[in-house]
Amino acid sequence: MSSRMSLSATNAISRATRHAPKISLGTSSMTFAQRLDWIRRLTDNRLDALLCAKKEPSEEDGPPSRRLTDAIGHATLGGGKRFRPFLVVESAALFGLSESEALETAAAVECVHCYSLAHDDLPAMDNDALRRGQPTVWKAFDEWTAILAGDALLTVAFEILSGPATHPDAGVRLELIAGLAKAAGPNGMVGGQALDLEAERLTRSAPLTLAEIRRLQRLKTGALITFSAEAGAILGRADAAERRAVRDYGTTLGLAFQIADDLLDAEGDAETVGKAVSKDAAAGKATLVSLMGVEAARAELRRVEQAAVDALRPFGPRAGTLIEAARFVASRNR
Amino acid sequence: MSSRMSLSATNAISRATRHAPKISLGTSSMTFAQRLDWIRRLTDNRLDALLCAKKEPSEEDGPPSRRLTDAIGHATLGGGKRFRPFLVVESAALFGLSESEALETAAAVECVHCYSLAHDDLPAMDNDALRRGQPTVWKAFDEWTAILAGDALLTVAFEILSGPATHPDAGVRLELIAGLAKAAGPNGMVGGQALDLEAERLTRSAPLTLAEIRRLQRLKTGALITFSAEAGAILGRADAAERRAVRDYGTTLGLAFQIADDLLDAEGDAETVGKAVSKDAAAGKATLVSLMGVEAARAELRRVEQAAVDALRPFGPRAGTLIEAARFVASRNR
Repeated sequence: MSSRMSLSATNAISRATRHAPKISLGTSSMTFAQRLDWIRRLTDNRLDALLCAKKEPSEEDGPPSRRLTDAIGHATLGGGKRFRPFLVVESAALFGLSESEALETAAAVECVHCYSLAHDDLPAMDNDALRRGQPTVWKAFDEWTAILAGDALLTVAFEILSGPATHPDAGVRLELIAGLAKAAGPNGMVGGQALDLEAERLTRSAPLTLAEIRRLQRLKTGALITFSAEAGAILGRADAAERRAVRDYGTTLGLAFQIADDLLDAEGDAETVGKAVSKDAAAGKATLVSLMGVEAARAELRRVEQAAVDALRPFGPRAGTLIEAARFVASRNR
Repeated sequence: MSSRMSLSATNAISRATRHAPKISLGTSSMTFAQRLDWIRRLTDNRLDALLCAKKEPSEEDGPPSRRLTDAIGHATLGGGKRFRPFLVVESAALFGLSESEALETAAAVECVHCYSLAHDDLPAMDNDALRRGQPTVWKAFDEWTAILAGDALLTVAFEILSGPATHPDAGVRLELIAGLAKAAGPNGMVGGQALDLEAERLTRSAPLTLAEIRRLQRLKTGALITFSAEAGAILGRADAAERRAVRDYGTTLGLAFQIADDLLDAEGDAETVGKAVSKDAAAGKATLVSLMGVEAARAELRRVEQAAVDALRPFGPRAGTLIEAARFVASRNR
């Protein structure tokens, strides 16, 4: 199966990636873009098998709700770079784990990411109709279906992590579950989204400060990206110093991700970005870019990109792909 | 702390419970109603400590969203019998576990129950403004806050179960996580809610049949009640036969719970029940009661009540409180 998929992955590499420089990985001659695309395909296949494959209804349970299954499929398989699964797999590779040994964790993290998108897009939240160039879940179905599809994905993420396919060691699985829950919960992603909506909706005495925006972004976007990188270290039973290094990489990468996102929102066009842009400015929202200005934001982006690269120094050339990922995040235009 | 709480629990026993018959437990001279109230208090205290206690903001993270914390508090501490925590604790007691040894699991199950209420009450779902005699979360705050509070509670439930305070054995904790995720996910509670809303909202060729209603209820309400009972057996490392017995008890108890709920909706008044009633009839929804008639539903309720009691036979007099619970569910008027 591996060789068949490798062939189809190679055939499908997008035009832009053909001229990308090769990176020396030792174990692979793929370019960064090829690696990203390859892990995207592995993730898509795994998510499809875990979430959407037609199951024979058991006699006791009968068929599941077709509508819910379809909405879960729409929420998870509607495109997306699978950047968080990529981080899990590549971070685990630093510690000698194969792709398949990291794939359940990668799929679980992506379930959480996709649930957060399905809920954030709701009319009561960000009210987005377009995502990855396609109708959002509530737009393609309706609100209640989008709420339940998100709830289901969040729940399934923990079911996946609890299973022996995630890692043979029970302690490792529990560490992953605790880490994902912390990154996604009220002191992580959900807390960040609450702070963001508070700032947008509630009357405040003053607009957000830079420090408040940084914290908001660290929770809303950063926590799950940091966990994605750290998950590889947990899977690989890294020592404390290695785990800290991977974590620092994830944290600075998350910062880069968010600054690039803010710059795209300020400067990009909807067709290239694949979702609505200039929403922040239209909403009168203070962002890093609105407070610092475009040039200062670009300088900060270069600074955190370098910090991400520096964090990987202990791993030497093994970290080539993750270094490319930092470059990719800082220079992405969609 | 134990004796102080015991005293305050005894003082606060409601009038109605003073004349309830004592049940022979050996380890306790409390009546059933006193046990229920006692475990409710333990659960409330534990939920408050886990979810709502004011935390010193860490230097890195700053204070959490006050609004989110308040909404989580409203969702979890606004009353409620804590029947699922009661089942966890009493089922664990069958296998020799103390209340405190079952309390983390009880709190996690209640988090999932409270999240489901916060989401189910949303305008896009059941559109309920009243719950336990108080405004629902979206009514007291707003929709986005209710969505995020529910998301947070679901996430925190798994964080609680992943911790060593839940059970010293990692394998037991993973079994609890897997069991809770299955009971709450697309093949459990969320799947049941989807089937329910599908039946209500989408054009169908025919109304639900009795078999379809039974399946819907088994998923929507039954799965989490069954898991609550089974969780005690998981915590107590019960053998397969004991676990099956407790599971059968939970399943039949869940049926009784739902039939009683349908009868209340058909016959109760809002003041006693503490939430809107006659909603099913007003929505033209087929229910067990509308399809069978009140008398046949009452007969079925007595039948499943007896089946729940019979399932506990292997445990002899130790199961006294759980037997009382089945009687309680079948005869409750709120």
